[in-house]
Amino acid sequence: MRHSLPLPHDEPPSVGLIGFGAFGQLVARHIAPYAPVFAHDSRNSLEDTAQALGVQLTDLRTVARCRIIILAVPVQAMADVLESIAPLLRSDALVIDVGSVKVKPVEIMVSLLPSTVSIIGTHPLFGPQSAGQTTAGLKIVLCPARGPYHTVAAFLRKTLRLNVIICTPEYHDQNMAVTQALTHWLAQGLKTLEPFSPHLTTRSFDLLRDAMKMVEKDAPQVFEAIECLNPYASSMRKQYLGLLSTLDKKLDTLTPA
Amino acid sequence: MRHSLPLPHDEPPSVGLIGFGAFGQLVARHIAPYAPVFAHDSRNSLEDTAQALGVQLTDLRTVARCRIIILAVPVQAMADVLESIAPLLRSDALVIDVGSVKVKPVEIMVSLLPSTVSIIGTHPLFGPQSAGQTTAGLKIVLCPARGPYHTVAAFLRKTLRLNVIICTPEYHDQNMAVTQALTHWLAQGLKTLEPFSPHLTTRSFDLLRDAMKMVEKDAPQVFEAIECLNPYASSMRKQYLGLLSTLDKKLDTLTPA
Repeated sequence: MRHSLPLPHDEPPSVGLIGFGAFGQLVARHIAPYAPVFAHDSRNSLEDTAQALGVQLTDLRTVARCRIIILAVPVQAMADVLESIAPLLRSDALVIDVGSVKVKPVEIMVSLLPSTVSIIGTHPLFGPQSAGQTTAGLKIVLCPARGPYHTVAAFLRKTLRLNVIICTPEYHDQNMAVTQALTHWLAQGLKTLEPFSPHLTTRSFDLLRDAMKMVEKDAPQVFEAIECLNPYASSMRKQYLGLLSTLDKKLDTLTPA
Repeated sequence: MRHSLPLPHDEPPSVGLIGFGAFGQLVARHIAPYAPVFAHDSRNSLEDTAQALGVQLTDLRTVARCRIIILAVPVQAMADVLESIAPLLRSDALVIDVGSVKVKPVEIMVSLLPSTVSIIGTHPLFGPQSAGQTTAGLKIVLCPARGPYHTVAAFLRKTLRLNVIICTPEYHDQNMAVTQALTHWLAQGLKTLEPFSPHLTTRSFDLLRDAMKMVEKDAPQVFEAIECLNPYASSMRKQYLGLLSTLDKKLDTLTPA
């Protein structure tokens, strides 16, 4: 059963996409079959991509007047974008972000957007590489911040067949400080030890290197957001450093001279 | 084409297996179809397993008189075992170890065994979990130390269909200090951060956790051998700790107050 994009209207609400990079394009690919999508990006030469996806590239003002606004910009740029669009938004707008951290984006959306505007923080736990033709079975975190969110959750679950995980921004960031921030940091560190022997590897190292390869394609801005804009990441890195250092010292005492 | 176990004899040489734990049993399972296998283990109650594998459990003296001796004991126990068997060995014996590190085992085999005895260090880059019914395509490192090794290499390659990697013990340990020692140490450290959210994970973390699960089943003695008996492991851990610490500090300077 196909649901058109959320909210109880007869015709699908217009979707305004701010940011038309790799992730914005991924969003457009999966949303455009269900609703008219208008996109804005400060860069040029995206006309062909937009046309292929059935998306109309336009100015920020037009995009900001859509019923649903999806922010697909770096977390670092979000405050500036929110300040630009706040005075332009419809009073019944729904604003959704897709950033890799959730506490700070939700905080600034709530503080910078008019109080009548609904807000949902999301974090799709996949990227352009892992989402192929279908999003079925992939995970997305949804942090309801202000206003209704059930129709959006139902659309993501039933139409896009995503595995929707609903939690608070704090719960997201606390858990992601381990599962995301540690992984990306270990991967960046491991990258500097390359090249590795292509032959002398065990299966467990091959898995570790596969994890590293997935992560090292991310833009530097994504890495910085994950590490610097998650309020729990820095202390988690230090906790793990401490564990590794303690274990290293213990192993040294067991090492024959 | 099936080759019977190495060396130019009309009938397959007897194989003496010292150590009949999980790895010794794995060796027996793949060797017994091609040669008579005699095994010795200081523990009891392995009769049923031995019978099922077509292996005869016997005393150390009988095992030590075989043409080929395979040491499937912890690296830590190897010197004691070598001192016990050195006076018992045939002058034309071939001794093979299967330890996770290679510099030290090869060093002590060369120094403790009679000069007429041939010696090959090996490291099968798989374990009882990863080797199912067949060894085809799995990797084994072979470090020739004294005497001929081509017939053993040919048996491993053609009959067991292993991917045989021939190198020096130093090359093995240098590379494994990264691909094995770092992986196991990171896994042990990560284990202490459990439990993780079963939901809030990315694909790259799932891979990292899979790598961790493979490694954490290893016996503590295996972990210690990998970390403490590889002469390059300690400095590699410190190099990686340094890289992680530097990156952590750099990220802190990028973090908004």
